[in-house]
Amino acid sequence: MSVLVVGSVAFDSIKTPFGDAPEILGGSASYFSVAASYFTEVRLVAVVGSDFPESNLQVFSSKGVDLRGLERVPGKTFRWAGEYSRNMNYRTTLDTQLNVFADFSPKIPPDYARSEYLFLGNIHPGLQSNVLQQVHRPRLVACDTMNYWISGERAALLETLKQIDILIINDQETCELAGTEVLPEAIRKVLALGPRILVMKRGENGICLVGPGMRFFVPAFPVEEVMDPTGAGDSFAGGFMGYLAGADTDDFESLKKAAVCGSVMASFCVEKFGLNRLTELTFPEITERYHEFHRMTQFAEL
Amino acid sequence: MSVLVVGSVAFDSIKTPFGDAPEILGGSASYFSVAASYFTEVRLVAVVGSDFPESNLQVFSSKGVDLRGLERVPGKTFRWAGEYSRNMNYRTTLDTQLNVFADFSPKIPPDYARSEYLFLGNIHPGLQSNVLQQVHRPRLVACDTMNYWISGERAALLETLKQIDILIINDQETCELAGTEVLPEAIRKVLALGPRILVMKRGENGICLVGPGMRFFVPAFPVEEVMDPTGAGDSFAGGFMGYLAGADTDDFESLKKAAVCGSVMASFCVEKFGLNRLTELTFPEITERYHEFHRMTQFAEL
Repeated sequence: MSVLVVGSVAFDSIKTPFGDAPEILGGSASYFSVAASYFTEVRLVAVVGSDFPESNLQVFSSKGVDLRGLERVPGKTFRWAGEYSRNMNYRTTLDTQLNVFADFSPKIPPDYARSEYLFLGNIHPGLQSNVLQQVHRPRLVACDTMNYWISGERAALLETLKQIDILIINDQETCELAGTEVLPEAIRKVLALGPRILVMKRGENGICLVGPGMRFFVPAFPVEEVMDPTGAGDSFAGGFMGYLAGADTDDFESLKKAAVCGSVMASFCVEKFGLNRLTELTFPEITERYHEFHRMTQFAEL
Repeated sequence: MSVLVVGSVAFDSIKTPFGDAPEILGGSASYFSVAASYFTEVRLVAVVGSDFPESNLQVFSSKGVDLRGLERVPGKTFRWAGEYSRNMNYRTTLDTQLNVFADFSPKIPPDYARSEYLFLGNIHPGLQSNVLQQVHRPRLVACDTMNYWISGERAALLETLKQIDILIINDQETCELAGTEVLPEAIRKVLALGPRILVMKRGENGICLVGPGMRFFVPAFPVEEVMDPTGAGDSFAGGFMGYLAGADTDDFESLKKAAVCGSVMASFCVEKFGLNRLTELTFPEITERYHEFHRMTQFAEL
């Protein structure tokens, strides 16, 4: 089965302690698409400006990503600039130019309307709901969001959350959405808002997947040198949803495997700037790291 | 096989958001002993004052802990008072009265000198080395320490580290000992100081065990309501060393199971104040939670 992703495609200017990368291909939908492409067919819905070069389109098409949903409109592509602290734990946004993304109103091509797996990247929750109105109810809808929408567009976000299956956010966002710092309580409250499953990203502390009768933890891969954390969360989502769509299943055992696939893709993502590591991957490298995750976490019964 | 522990026995006065517990039984060796007692025979070396009541001795003896190494000297027992922040992530020491612990010089009873499993609790590293001189080299020596010794008694600590097998400390201590904030680098540097294996406690983020060809992660159990985090680290060490001594083995597969047993004991420890939860446990409760850890972390190969 293919997976449909709606999100941003952007030019990122990134500073980390390892160097500068000006105006490289980024955006939530870009990381998601490339990560998911190793597991299944990907359909990308996003918008770029007239300055978006052919070479960047080829990054996607070389991975077999279906670009019929990538709108190209007059104007400049979304630009973001950020800088990471020395230990990479903090990120400062230096500049945001929404450009053509400011008026982004996702149009789902008719051929995409029956996609069974859908990922709503981090865009205005009203747009996320709008996407859901344009498609035949998929088998599985996953969704990302951020503090900006949690505090600024709460009503619209709560509406979206009622319509999705899986919410993929980080631990701070979970607490902010729930209005409590106590994680077990926060998780319960978030699950009461609609999503059947919460996949909580905890950075270097890995992933926690919670749902009815489900509780699964996977650590972050101990990457030797994190060059650039940008896109790790979207790469996780890409590996996660890509695996589920490719396997066409959503039982607990598959969700676990999907969470590991997501963690594998996130761990590769941060090893080089931007999409550089994700685009050069081979599937054997992915299965080898999956196996390494297995070795790192498996133990016998008492 | 039995496990020998050298450390503190104290009266703790603890404030958490859930209440106050004045002058309850505590200390590193107390938590370690009770936790380890579910897996093997425990030999306790520590010192208490003349104010230490018979009822507290019974806490240990009811668990079969061998108290021949527990010295009783004139004066008052070590007292510590602390308060936890609302989310339990921070602890403020309100009062420390070393009392008889100030002159503690561990004397290992002759019958204990051939103990094959030894845990050096968090005491002056010079005393830890002194204990090692009093025993026939055990099969496995594990050791704890803290920031106070890392910064204040570095030379003595480095001497101790050369003589041990397993260092059990938290992530901040690992970074401070290594002199770097970059964890993979810190882990490498700490392992170069002597210990064959580093077991790094990461609080609510679980445990990481690293050694030559070994890398293992176990998450923290998602305890519904943490009442009192005091003693969690020592309870981990007790479950960890207790399991290894009971099984009389230290291969990688056993070290993994030991790390899970430790995590199980730590998760029980924090559910009530002081030793209240640890002392009332049954072995079936322990195996059931071990099994729950298994369910939470195991996944199939791709």
